[in-house]
Amino acid sequence: MIVVRPVSGLPEITAGDDLARLILEAGGSPEDGDVVVVSQKAVSKAEGRTVELSSVSPGARANALAAEHGHDPRAVQVVLDESIELLRAERGVLISRTRQGFVCANAGVDASNAGAEDRLVLLPHDPDGSARELRTALGRRSGRRPAVVIADSFGRTWRHGQCDVAIGCAGLAPLEDWRGRPDADGRELRATWIAVADQAAAAADLARDKVSRQPAAIISGLERHVAPDDGPGAAALVRPPAEDLFR
Amino acid sequence: MIVVRPVSGLPEITAGDDLARLILEAGGSPEDGDVVVVSQKAVSKAEGRTVELSSVSPGARANALAAEHGHDPRAVQVVLDESIELLRAERGVLISRTRQGFVCANAGVDASNAGAEDRLVLLPHDPDGSARELRTALGRRSGRRPAVVIADSFGRTWRHGQCDVAIGCAGLAPLEDWRGRPDADGRELRATWIAVADQAAAAADLARDKVSRQPAAIISGLERHVAPDDGPGAAALVRPPAEDLFR
Repeated sequence: MIVVRPVSGLPEITAGDDLARLILEAGGSPEDGDVVVVSQKAVSKAEGRTVELSSVSPGARANALAAEHGHDPRAVQVVLDESIELLRAERGVLISRTRQGFVCANAGVDASNAGAEDRLVLLPHDPDGSARELRTALGRRSGRRPAVVIADSFGRTWRHGQCDVAIGCAGLAPLEDWRGRPDADGRELRATWIAVADQAAAAADLARDKVSRQPAAIISGLERHVAPDDGPGAAALVRPPAEDLFR
Repeated sequence: MIVVRPVSGLPEITAGDDLARLILEAGGSPEDGDVVVVSQKAVSKAEGRTVELSSVSPGARANALAAEHGHDPRAVQVVLDESIELLRAERGVLISRTRQGFVCANAGVDASNAGAEDRLVLLPHDPDGSARELRTALGRRSGRRPAVVIADSFGRTWRHGQCDVAIGCAGLAPLEDWRGRPDADGRELRATWIAVADQAAAAADLARDKVSRQPAAIISGLERHVAPDDGPGAAALVRPPAEDLFR
């Protein structure tokens, strides 16, 4: 059985905030083996990963893309700065590979719930590092050993809407590999390689409210995927560009 | 709070089985507003959507693709039969658009847990119709009004591993649209369009065991997305080919 509890009543997060303290003070009480899922936006804001549009000077490429797609050229410049490769720029949508290796819209740069007008929130520099730090801090402050997932909402190539996925994780096995193991008939399972951390992010999103400041949720029931070591992180979920069939 | 309970102890499903009866007899007791998530494989087997490889005569294209990618040409023929368009055939992977409109590997055709050697399980002809039928049957037998999701594991273009998504649903709003609504600062939320049914499928998969016959799980806590009418189904989650940026 899986239980997902949102953590409510956190204050607005600002740069320098101690997220572990805020989550525990808000009544989030993770036990050993629980998974604490925190929104990327909360982590980025605590890390000061924001940009004020007024500080951005767009270059020629950003100006051209912005004109073509009806965007603010300063926001496009920020997306380009956060990207290592622009995969598509069509119908107002910019799909790029981010510096962290993720392929997503607008390099994960987002203006909603940014905390101020004309502020953009960027992805953490090193989301797995952020997850490890938060895990350590939660463990130190609570005396428990939960795992941590940092979640962001990504669109899907051939499906409408977004699902939350893990952009960072620590202490949770991101993938469960059943390939080669037998099925109920004793036949080898071929393609069963489960993105546990992404499904945990999605489950947490179902329990969180987008408007009423619930940047975290705690999942119980995933103990068999939780390990003492931090593990490979969400980096293990990134398909390398060389294996990309849809560049 | 979200709670996901697996339904254990169902027998091996065979063609003609009454899935609603089997789920309820196994102790799955959905309440009004719960979501019953059932694996595609169980639904397909109950509907007799299986093919014996010995009955398949591969054509020239299947033989060529099979030789190139190291597959059984009869299995490739079945994938082609279930597809309206082959998008990629690379490194042993066939990515196609299925007759139901989904883009996935091998047109959703799968040999694991098929119930017999050399048997392949196909997607249901009309998964939303299957979900509506199962919902009606569950309601009639239990006196409750749960929603139904039919879930299958899909890979992702730029991420390793698979997540379960909804290929059919009834009584659950597949998408929650926050676009245009204000965020916590009163700023318009731009891209927040949540694939609720897909996240429900993912959450259910976290609770199910792939080997020990748990083809269903029951989710509580999604009442605000459950409606009296069947709704648009998982068809609403399919991005139309005209909007596909990665053909």
